[in-house]
Amino acid sequence: MIILGIDPGLAIVGYGVVESVKGRVTPIDYGVINTPAGMRTPLRLQRIHKGLLTLFEKFKPEEIAVEELFFSNNKTTGIPVAEARGVILMTAINYTDKLFEYTPNQIKQAITGWGGADKRQMQEVVRQTLRLKAIPKPDDAADALAVALTHAQTNRFGSLFGM
Amino acid sequence: MIILGIDPGLAIVGYGVVESVKGRVTPIDYGVINTPAGMRTPLRLQRIHKGLLTLFEKFKPEEIAVEELFFSNNKTTGIPVAEARGVILMTAINYTDKLFEYTPNQIKQAITGWGGADKRQMQEVVRQTLRLKAIPKPDDAADALAVALTHAQTNRFGSLFGM
Repeated sequence: MIILGIDPGLAIVGYGVVESVKGRVTPIDYGVINTPAGMRTPLRLQRIHKGLLTLFEKFKPEEIAVEELFFSNNKTTGIPVAEARGVILMTAINYTDKLFEYTPNQIKQAITGWGGADKRQMQEVVRQTLRLKAIPKPDDAADALAVALTHAQTNRFGSLFGM
Repeated sequence: MIILGIDPGLAIVGYGVVESVKGRVTPIDYGVINTPAGMRTPLRLQRIHKGLLTLFEKFKPEEIAVEELFFSNNKTTGIPVAEARGVILMTAINYTDKLFEYTPNQIKQAITGWGGADKRQMQEVVRQTLRLKAIPKPDDAADALAVALTHAQTNRFGSLFGM
């Protein structure tokens, strides 16, 4: 099964595409959709929307997993990310109802087995699991692969236990 | 010119459609797009997206005005509104690049001439300006008409002064 993981953002949307076959997960592609800081927000959101449509067409993911927002104390930076995330969720649900959301803690626990792992540890586990030579760059792409891996793992245990 | 004003929200999106001809503004329609509280967020966002497409097709607005978010202290309620607003901006910019945004203060000042007006005073001015028998219900529809009126007025002065 092809899974697309997405790490939301307004300036940078990370994406990671993996294939999961009987518990073995292999990387297919990863990268980011960038939007320029000087561009009006509606146009940046439109670029994200179109970028996702291109990814859907190219990789034809069967399931999509999106990271839920972390509510930081700095709420004014959270608003643009939330606007982008709204566009991502809407664009994804228009494509498939097999759309799943995971919190940062769910992702940490799925990847490293405990909630206290730092970013670097997470990325190293992602690298090993996908048998990559180096940690994927930028961070947003590595994070998106972690979301895809989380879904692959959750989904696998779900199937094993008939969930 | 047909102007569509939008008051963003996840549970309720207010809309107001007005026609502005040489400074005289007449109401065409107003109302809300509702999304059920029990529905998954991506599906609620999809309903907003489709609801807007229906409005665009029905009224063929030439310009669209959207209220900017008020950053309240309660940031967890702000996130769903921001997600909905992202969908609204993206859907609108896909339809027309004549898309404008106004802050709550800009709207208050345009409608009542000063920033200190309360909600009820605003609504009463909207009612009078549009020669309506009663204040439009619900509040979200009245707010959306205020956004449309703000744009009609700004646009008119903009044209007068060659902006």
